[in-house]
Amino acid sequence: MSILVVGSVAFDSIKTPFGVADDVLGGSACYFSTAASFFTDVNLVAVVGDDFPQQHIDFLKSRNIDLAGLQKSRGDTFRWKGRYDYNLNEAHTLETHLNVFESFQPVLPENYRDAEYVFLANIDPELQLEVLQQVKNPKLVACDTMNFWIEGKKAELIKTLAKVDILIINEAEVRQLADEPNLLKAAAIVRSFGPETLVVKQGEYGVLMFGEGSIFSAPAYPLEEVFDPTGAGDTFAGGFIGYLAATSNQSEQNLRKATVFGTVMASFTVEKFSLDRLRDIDYLEISDRYKKIKLLTEFADID
Amino acid sequence: MSILVVGSVAFDSIKTPFGVADDVLGGSACYFSTAASFFTDVNLVAVVGDDFPQQHIDFLKSRNIDLAGLQKSRGDTFRWKGRYDYNLNEAHTLETHLNVFESFQPVLPENYRDAEYVFLANIDPELQLEVLQQVKNPKLVACDTMNFWIEGKKAELIKTLAKVDILIINEAEVRQLADEPNLLKAAAIVRSFGPETLVVKQGEYGVLMFGEGSIFSAPAYPLEEVFDPTGAGDTFAGGFIGYLAATSNQSEQNLRKATVFGTVMASFTVEKFSLDRLRDIDYLEISDRYKKIKLLTEFADID
Repeated sequence: MSILVVGSVAFDSIKTPFGVADDVLGGSACYFSTAASFFTDVNLVAVVGDDFPQQHIDFLKSRNIDLAGLQKSRGDTFRWKGRYDYNLNEAHTLETHLNVFESFQPVLPENYRDAEYVFLANIDPELQLEVLQQVKNPKLVACDTMNFWIEGKKAELIKTLAKVDILIINEAEVRQLADEPNLLKAAAIVRSFGPETLVVKQGEYGVLMFGEGSIFSAPAYPLEEVFDPTGAGDTFAGGFIGYLAATSNQSEQNLRKATVFGTVMASFTVEKFSLDRLRDIDYLEISDRYKKIKLLTEFADID
Repeated sequence: MSILVVGSVAFDSIKTPFGVADDVLGGSACYFSTAASFFTDVNLVAVVGDDFPQQHIDFLKSRNIDLAGLQKSRGDTFRWKGRYDYNLNEAHTLETHLNVFESFQPVLPENYRDAEYVFLANIDPELQLEVLQQVKNPKLVACDTMNFWIEGKKAELIKTLAKVDILIINEAEVRQLADEPNLLKAAAIVRSFGPETLVVKQGEYGVLMFGEGSIFSAPAYPLEEVFDPTGAGDTFAGGFIGYLAATSNQSEQNLRKATVFGTVMASFTVEKFSLDRLRDIDYLEISDRYKKIKLLTEFADID
């Protein structure tokens, strides 16, 4: 089952304690679709400027990502500049130039409107809703958001969430959206807005998934070298939704497996700048890390 | 198999966003031994002042904790005053009055010197070493420490660690002790100082245990009400070492079970001030939470 993703394609300039990268390929839709492409086909809706080079188009196509929905506008592609200190859980934004992304209007090609799996990456919740109005009969809708929209467009966001099955956001955002410091209580409040499943990203501490009467805890894959956390969250979402779409199964047990696959995919992304690590992995490496997370978490029953 | 614990007995005064407690029973040795007492017998070595009331003595005795090693000195008992904000992972110390604890000299009663399981709670590493010199032939030595000793007595601490099998400390302390920001690398450095097993406490994010060629990740038990985190780490250690001593088995699989029991015990402590929650639990409640952590972490294999 293919996935429709709507989000950003960007150039990132990043400084971490371990290195510097300038104008490398980034953006939520790129990370998501590249990760998901290891599991299934992806239809991508986003916008780039006329400075966007053919080599990136070629790369995305090489991952079997359909780019019929990639608009090309006059002007520059979205640019983000950020910095991380040794606490890699926290990004410091230095510059944001929305450029062509500022007037982005997601229009779905006709053949994208039958999408069964939809991922609305972190964009204006009003645009997320517009996307959903163009999709005929989705089987599963997942979305991301951020503090900027929680602060500035909370009413619109809650309207969008009413139509969402799975919300994937980070821990601080869950607390902020619910206005409640305790994570369990905050998760219950956010689930009452609509999403049956809430996936809470906790950076290097892993992921908590909240469903009806159940919680699942998955650790992050332990790494000796975390190089650049940019895109980890969108990569997680790509692995997670990618696995769900590939297996076409939303049972609690399958959601748990999808969570671990998301965690595995994110662990690759942070090992290099941009999508560079995702360019050179294969399914064997993915399944190897899945099995290692299994070993990492196993312990015996008691009587 | 009984356990010898050497540490502090104290009066704590605590303010959290949820309430205030004055001069309640606390101290590393109290939390540790009460938690361990659900699994096995404990011999406690510590010091109190002449202000220490009989009711606390009676409580510890009611938990089958042997107090032959509890010294009573002229003066006041150790007092700690602290505050937590909504970020319950971080304690703000307001006052520390060591009082009789300042001149504490741990002297083991003769019948404690055959101890097979020893826990050296967070005290001066030179005193920790003095305790070990009094123990004839321990089967397992575990210890805790803190930033204060890492900063002020690192050489002495490293001398003590050479004689320790299991070090149980928090994440920031591992990084500080190893002088290395990456946790995996830091864990390898700290294990090279002596401890075969390193247990890294991550507060609400759970625990990582590092052994020879293995890592185990256990989440914290999710709670809707975290009332006061004081003593959670020592309670964890009590459940952990308590289970190991009760089963007299240090296999990797048993260390994993012990970690989960430690996590379970800590989850009770944080639900009320002082040792109040530990006063009213039984083994059924403990095993129930163990099973819930099992459910929380389970996911299926892949082919």
